[in-house]
Amino acid sequence: MNLVFEHITLGQRVLFGTGQAADNLAQEVERLNAQRVMLIAAETEQELAATVAAKISPVVEYNNVVMHVPVEVAQEARSVAQDNKVDLLVCVGGGSTTGLAKAIAMETRMPIVAVPTTYAGSEATNVWGLTEAARKTTGVDDAVLPTTVIYDADLTMTLPVELSVASGLNGMAHCIDSLWGPRVDPINQALAVEGIRALAEGLPAIVDDAQDVTGREQLLYGAYLSAVAFASAGSGMHHKICHVLGGTFNLPHAQTHATVLAYVLAFNMDAAPEAAAKIASAFGSDDALAGLQRLRERLDAPRKLADYGFTEDGIGEAVEVALPAIPANNPRTVTEENLTDLLRAALHGEDPAQLRQRSS
Amino acid sequence: MNLVFEHITLGQRVLFGTGQAADNLAQEVERLNAQRVMLIAAETEQELAATVAAKISPVVEYNNVVMHVPVEVAQEARSVAQDNKVDLLVCVGGGSTTGLAKAIAMETRMPIVAVPTTYAGSEATNVWGLTEAARKTTGVDDAVLPTTVIYDADLTMTLPVELSVASGLNGMAHCIDSLWGPRVDPINQALAVEGIRALAEGLPAIVDDAQDVTGREQLLYGAYLSAVAFASAGSGMHHKICHVLGGTFNLPHAQTHATVLAYVLAFNMDAAPEAAAKIASAFGSDDALAGLQRLRERLDAPRKLADYGFTEDGIGEAVEVALPAIPANNPRTVTEENLTDLLRAALHGEDPAQLRQRSS
Repeated sequence: MNLVFEHITLGQRVLFGTGQAADNLAQEVERLNAQRVMLIAAETEQELAATVAAKISPVVEYNNVVMHVPVEVAQEARSVAQDNKVDLLVCVGGGSTTGLAKAIAMETRMPIVAVPTTYAGSEATNVWGLTEAARKTTGVDDAVLPTTVIYDADLTMTLPVELSVASGLNGMAHCIDSLWGPRVDPINQALAVEGIRALAEGLPAIVDDAQDVTGREQLLYGAYLSAVAFASAGSGMHHKICHVLGGTFNLPHAQTHATVLAYVLAFNMDAAPEAAAKIASAFGSDDALAGLQRLRERLDAPRKLADYGFTEDGIGEAVEVALPAIPANNPRTVTEENLTDLLRAALHGEDPAQLRQRSS
Repeated sequence: MNLVFEHITLGQRVLFGTGQAADNLAQEVERLNAQRVMLIAAETEQELAATVAAKISPVVEYNNVVMHVPVEVAQEARSVAQDNKVDLLVCVGGGSTTGLAKAIAMETRMPIVAVPTTYAGSEATNVWGLTEAARKTTGVDDAVLPTTVIYDADLTMTLPVELSVASGLNGMAHCIDSLWGPRVDPINQALAVEGIRALAEGLPAIVDDAQDVTGREQLLYGAYLSAVAFASAGSGMHHKICHVLGGTFNLPHAQTHATVLAYVLAFNMDAAPEAAAKIASAFGSDDALAGLQRLRERLDAPRKLADYGFTEDGIGEAVEVALPAIPANNPRTVTEENLTDLLRAALHGEDPAQLRQRSS
């Protein structure tokens, strides 16, 4: 098959080093010749932010961080940035904190140095999001892409294991779904595969010991790659299904992803043998599904949607809403019938292998 | 071992499609809203350039392309660009053509769309080079990084197989040496490994049939990745040795690289087991060296430096000059003694496996 693709690589500097965030931030502020830094961090992360900013002198600190970035908050934060003649935004925190910095940069074109404290991944994309009257709008603008990302696993040590696993499996879903996303290409595939490898190494390590530094590093690094790959390849079949289950049926995000992923992988893998071989190799397994299932068992991951409020009654509507959203380039043709089978299997926690094409 | 790295990702758009260069170029000129294009191509590539530019209307064409970009040529080309109020440089050609566009962009900050017709890889880096009075100076400047690269394997169909193989093996050396380059990190490793896979697929295919489209595509794609990985990771042991053999002893570039690579791989691989496993997997082999050797045999690649004018007498000086240049992070400690052994083995075409550490 001919190689045809358009790949956009987003230019960014990544500084990765445990215990080095304060030094790396001071170095970046100097390299960027920033004189007037605005430090953005949630109230609850003031202490973490102070550690990170120990070697710089912000002219202003802002801590009114609100989930999903309400428009009014973004406007207030922009005024503070402009009134203080800020020339660099430094955000320390999770997705909402990075999101607020992006909302400021969107209008003011100020550069961002992002210091993530979770596995959200927003720091590696040019996607912004704002909410107004409970409606979320998102968009793409290169001006919101952080110039530099500083990763320091020390900042993630206090993230509860359960939350970390959910977040890591979410990253895993980004990686696997990237392999057949609508804009999939060999470059974002290579990054997704490296992400799978890192997450498959990091996740069991932190389940054994939440303070395992190597595990935390691999998880953080894997989350970064999952964001890069997913932003490049776009939402595949897995995310379209989960979007419906979350949006229409209000199922919990993390558990839905962790469950559905195995079924979508089983469904697609035999129709995408090259992708499946790459996934298998990233898991250090002979078989992609076996690799994922071994990891899920190790993590005691969620097994069936029935545990989270989904029922047989919902299948028809879920199929109806999800089916038209599934990308045309999905490796296997999705029909009302086989999507119904997939959702029924996921509902009851049946063996995903029964969905494989070779067995039909 | 802790994960510590600084990785700079260069932002760039890559459009890859055989037979699509003219359409992709027209699309990019429109997307960039360029009104005054300067088309740069060597005399010998006028026909190719005309095909590529079939759907745009350059305001000026420039064809005084000279190897290694002499300063006077660069100055003349800059004047032409400025006199014509050019807002986009489009270069169609090999390394010297891309190099000339970069020399213009360096001073004028004009954006570049590069359409490579060889496997040189310059289009994927922010490195420029100029020669003045036979001395070459190089430097790094993000302004010379092409905004967009358009790859079209049709433009490479007429490259002679022998030259293509030499160039592809050069790319292979970039990829393998990247795995222990001074700025190696897991991201450039992942890209290098994907490059090895692509080159190992493309090279035998074009030896069998110079017009094999899939082979040409893989070679072009692999050459791109080799440039990205190498620019990021920097010169490792292999390139430091080859630089001395070329510079001090005037050995031919391509043959020297093709020969020395197997010896450096054998020398380092047991001290870098993770890198070796990645290389092996990219070759679809159990063993990195066996994978490379199988490919070299398939390509009838050069076997010994004695065939290209190197002699026992040169070994002492080569060791003396190369030894201090080898990066401190090389996986295995390099000594006068073991580097002498390596060069002697490469001189006579002895089995590289004898240099492996497990056997000593």
